[in-house]
Formats: sequence, C-alpha cells, structure tokens
Amino acid sequence: MIERLCVIGVGLIGGSIAQAAREKGLCRSIIGVDSNRQNLQQAKALEVIDQATNDIGKGAGTADFIVVATPVGAVGGVFSALRSYWSDDAVYTDVCSTKRSVLEAAQAAFGFVPDNFVPAHPIAGAERSGVGASRPDLYSGKRVIVTPLPNTDRAALAKVTAFWRGLGAEVSKMEAAHHDEVLAATSHLPHVVAYALVDMLGKKDEKREIFQFAAGGFRDFTRIASSDPRMWLDICMANREEIVPLIKQLSVELEVIADMIDNNATDELLETFRCAHSARRRFINHSLS
Amino acid sequence: MIERLCVIGVGLIGGSIAQAAREKGLCRSIIGVDSNRQNLQQAKALEVIDQATNDIGKGAGTADFIVVATPVGAVGGVFSALRSYWSDDAVYTDVCSTKRSVLEAAQAAFGFVPDNFVPAHPIAGAERSGVGASRPDLYSGKRVIVTPLPNTDRAALAKVTAFWRGLGAEVSKMEAAHHDEVLAATSHLPHVVAYALVDMLGKKDEKREIFQFAAGGFRDFTRIASSDPRMWLDICMANREEIVPLIKQLSVELEVIADMIDNNATDELLETFRCAHSARRRFINHSLS
Repeated sequence: MIERLCVIGVGLIGGSIAQAAREKGLCRSIIGVDSNRQNLQQAKALEVIDQATNDIGKGAGTADFIVVATPVGAVGGVFSALRSYWSDDAVYTDVCSTKRSVLEAAQAAFGFVPDNFVPAHPIAGAERSGVGASRPDLYSGKRVIVTPLPNTDRAALAKVTAFWRGLGAEVSKMEAAHHDEVLAATSHLPHVVAYALVDMLGKKDEKREIFQFAAGGFRDFTRIASSDPRMWLDICMANREEIVPLIKQLSVELEVIADMIDNNATDELLETFRCAHSARRRFINHSLS
Repeated sequence: MIERLCVIGVGLIGGSIAQAAREKGLCRSIIGVDSNRQNLQQAKALEVIDQATNDIGKGAGTADFIVVATPVGAVGGVFSALRSYWSDDAVYTDVCSTKRSVLEAAQAAFGFVPDNFVPAHPIAGAERSGVGASRPDLYSGKRVIVTPLPNTDRAALAKVTAFWRGLGAEVSKMEAAHHDEVLAATSHLPHVVAYALVDMLGKKDEKREIFQFAAGGFRDFTRIASSDPRMWLDICMANREEIVPLIKQLSVELEVIADMIDNNATDELLETFRCAHSARRRFINHSLS
C-alpha cells in the first residue's frame, strides 16, 4: 500500500491515475501538483486529489510514490525541480509517450538515471483533456509499457508494475528505443496524419463548406486531430528520429497509390487495399479491448 | 406509397434501405435483386425482402420504385440490363458514392440520362458489409445528397426526396461535380489514407509485432481500412480526377510537416496542429449526429 501518492500534472492522465488509485485502494492519500492553478483547484474540488500544491518539493518530498504525469516537454523542468527533494526510499515513475527523451531528461538533470525511477507509458487517452475529463476506468484493460534500464532497481520496477496492474492495466516490458519505434508507428504517425489531413481539408472548408457532408467514417478517422496540439508538438519533437522517416515513407506510399489510380493499375491497388484490410483484422484480433 | 420497391443489390446499403422502407411503411412489397445467390437467400431468410430474384428484368419490371444499390463498378451493367425493362411510369434512383460516373454510365447505356432517374448518395455506411450487417436505422439522422440534372423529372425528384426523408435522412441537392469534389475530400481521401497507412504498418507488423501496442486512437483512425477493398477500388477509379490531386496534395503536406519537425520549426508545426484542432471542432459542430 502506498502511503502518499504524488501526482505531478493533474490532467486527464494524472487525474485518471489518482481516481483509479483511490478507487482500487492502492494508496492512503493523494497530493496533486500542477502549475495550472485552475486545473489544480478543479482537481481538489472534484476530490480527485486530497491536497493540492504548485510546489513540486512540497508535493513530492512527503510522498513514497511519485508519478510525473506532465506533458513530454515539461519533464526536464520537473526533474530539475525534483532533484533536491529526491528520496532513495521513494519510487518515481512517469507516463510519457516517448521514453528515450525522458531518460535523456533524467540524465541531463541528475547526471545519471536514478535507480528508483521507472519509465512507464500507459497506452490510453481520450479526445478531451484536463482533469474534468479524467475517469477511474481510463486504464482498465489497457496496456502499459515499462522501459527499465539495466540499473533500474528491481523492487521499484516491481512496485510500478504492481501499481499499474492494480489500476487494471496489462504491463509489458521493452527497451526504450523499441518503445519509441513502435509508438511512432501506431500512435505518433497516425496523429500527425490526422492533423495534416484535417488542416488541409479545414482550409478547403473555409472556402467552400465540405465538412457538413462528412460522415461517421470521417468523424472516427479524424478524432485524434482533436488531441491537444501543444502536447503533440512536444511528442513529435521528442521522438523526431523515429517519426520523420515514417512520415516520409507514408508520403511516398501516397504518391505510389496516386500513380496506381492514375495509371489504372487496378490489380496493384486492390492488392494494397486488401493487405490493409487483412492487417486491420489482425490488429483487431490482437487488441485487448 | 410505393406499391412495389425493387432493390438491386441487397448488401449493407440496399438491405438497410429495404428494412427502413418496410419499417417506415413506405412500400407495400419489396423485391430484391442480387447476382450473389447466397446474399440473396440470406436477405429473403432475414425477411429484409419479400421476393428474391437474380433477374433484373423480373425484379425491376414490376416495380414502381427502383433503387440501384450495387457497388459503383457494377452500375453500368445494371443500366444495360434495365434498358429493355425501363418504364416511364417508374422512378429510378441509385446510392453510389460517385455521381458523375453514374451519370456517364447512364449516358453510355441509354444514349441519354433518363428523366425519371434521380442520382442520389446516402452518406452512411458501416464497418461491416453484406445484408447481415444491414439495419433499419442506418440512414436515420444521416445526409443524402441528390444530384439531379436540368432535365430530371420534378415529380421523380420529389418522390426520391420524400423517400429518403421518410427513411429519416436529411436531403441536400447539389451538382454531381460538386458532390464528387466534396466526397473526394471528406470520404474518398480518408479511406485511401487509412488503407495506405495500415498497409504500410501491416508490413512492419509482419516483421516485428507492433499492432498489439496500438490503442483506441489507432482503432478509430484505421476503422475505415476495414471497408470493402473491391468497393473502394471502384470508387477510386470512378472519381480519380478528384481523388488523385488530393492524395498528391496530402503527400506534399506530410513532407512539409516532416521538414518542420526536422528543422525544429515548432511555431509552424504548432500552428498546423492548432488549425487542424479547430477545424475538427468546426466539423463536430456541423455534423448531424
């Protein structure tokens, strides 16, 4: 049992962790840290957290389990602020969508990656953001990837793994580089594509309305373009090495398909569509929920 | 009241029309035509249609309201088969996702577009296909676009409009060329992009599993890649003039975004993501359901 859980960044992700930890009885008390005063007050008012502070030291210094749930771009600053309050008796973890950048941020702040920091990434999200959108079942049946280093403390890793399992998630372990490669493909690339497409069509819509004739397929396809732009900017920059080649590859794939249509290459086009069709079926069969 | 409704092509779209027309009391009897014997038998067994035939003449010849609900690529053959049974007293309509190609097919079969043929396109669909997936509420709250020509009979247009309104849809009127332009952007392009992305990632997944770590966002984004490949091949070929330039434009947009990430152009990237974010909000505010 965690005596005092500290959640740094009480948005959708952090707020949902707090709610789930309380509901599952994993901790005795929760302190929330957030630089956004309004968000912090809302988290307190909603009873997502027991105590609220904008002082990272005050929040983390008295806790035995600390979750850094800020956007990717803020992690470096959080590590620097945590440095003088770091406790060898506590367990630290994060939730960032890119793992190499988090390890680099730790390296930069501490000169090494502390043994009791366990990098983790819950693969879950929602269209809306902020603590108001948080909910205790966000991680139920979802996957969490932990990316420990060789020096990561085994007891800390076990605690973080048990924490996420306690929240209803299925925990996988992989290297940070592999995590970043996989997530670039299945999450970061689709977000970039959704933003690119909706930006392009949005400009057409301004000239002559087209969105009013879009249907459910378009709604689903573009849902991730409703994600927080600032957060996704950070993710793109943090994982640029993996993302950029994938974007370029897809750009070429689209050129190839345009040429197939232009050249009446129906066999090749049908084969492409069929491969995608069966790949999606494979994905559906693999997915947890 | 329609005496006898004939649905040519009793799949998801045609089957749902039949079910909805019966439920809303818009017709006295329904005859279904399908070249797929199994699908036809299933439609009969499910009581989606009253009578089943694979003979277009037999099906359409005795009906006063005929809906061509075959895939885009089959419409030319259906028109040719209908020619000798064409009745001036009946009303004909279709459901195809591309409207210029349907008008061209009519022109080719008849030497002109018959006055009592009203081109229409219900903007609705589902992940699954076939009569087993059909349901009476598929068109409830959805948009239908009709694209009449100057010579289109006004009474026929009124009947088709009333039919779709009776099925719960909202009917808009526009020129066929404008329809094809709008749908290329909001439907055809997203389908091509979803196929391209899932094809590309599917090949990566074969080498090293990545799909098991994909989440809900990926599921939504790729849902349309589960659409029928053959049907979408036909649509791409039928609307190639509109689709190809859009695919090429998106390909360039992706190159531009890749360069922004590469060059650390965070302001431009954030602006792109923000434009997409607000464009999607505009779409959500516009959409019917």
